[in-house]
Amino acid sequence: MSEKTTAAFRKAVEAGDAEGVLATFAADVTFNNPVTFRPFEGEVLTSVVPRLLEVWQDLHYTAELQGDGFVGLVFEARVGHRYANGIDLLPFNDEGLITEITVKVRPLTALQALGEEMQAALAR
Amino acid sequence: MSEKTTAAFRKAVEAGDAEGVLATFAADVTFNNPVTFRPFEGEVLTSVVPRLLEVWQDLHYTAELQGDGFVGLVFEARVGHRYANGIDLLPFNDEGLITEITVKVRPLTALQALGEEMQAALAR
Repeated sequence: MSEKTTAAFRKAVEAGDAEGVLATFAADVTFNNPVTFRPFEGEVLTSVVPRLLEVWQDLHYTAELQGDGFVGLVFEARVGHRYANGIDLLPFNDEGLITEITVKVRPLTALQALGEEMQAALAR
Repeated sequence: MSEKTTAAFRKAVEAGDAEGVLATFAADVTFNNPVTFRPFEGEVLTSVVPRLLEVWQDLHYTAELQGDGFVGLVFEARVGHRYANGIDLLPFNDEGLITEITVKVRPLTALQALGEEMQAALAR
């Protein structure tokens, strides 16, 4: 089941489709965003995800890895005019829904730009 | 062959053993560090790797992922008093040696601290 969710998640993120992304999440999902130590959790993601998707430009996945009960999705993107290279780590529950999303991004210039854009997007 | 290299790399990084880490690298290795856009390449790593290993405290791997010709190693660590959570992406050549290492770290506070520590370590 996680294969189907992974494919739906990839497609939705690349299309900037927030509803599609949210449909792949379990109700109690934890979002470990790349910027802040504190995660976003549960209900708040309904308003946070659409705003976060706006921050990325030209995000496209370039590789997929399989772990024990989770997948890793490698991506490239831009944040403003900064090149970003990142990974989403996604574990799944028994229904094949994403229970946690951990995003890591390099280099530092991209993560700093992402922090600024995220703050601006969340303030709107 | 890459399983053996992966095990040797994990062990050497966790032990802060620079020679052990360098022994897992191909001669033309590219190191996409988490901080700078520009990679470290080839010979310079002989002096860079020992310094970079000093920057991490309590680094330990928590999970392993398999991709097509490469592995992902998830780790937790500290940089100073900052919690860091990262991943190493490692592709291999036909001899089972690491041809490229891409490191991604979150959250922003850890990556900023890492940038400062890295600069200080490289200046010594």
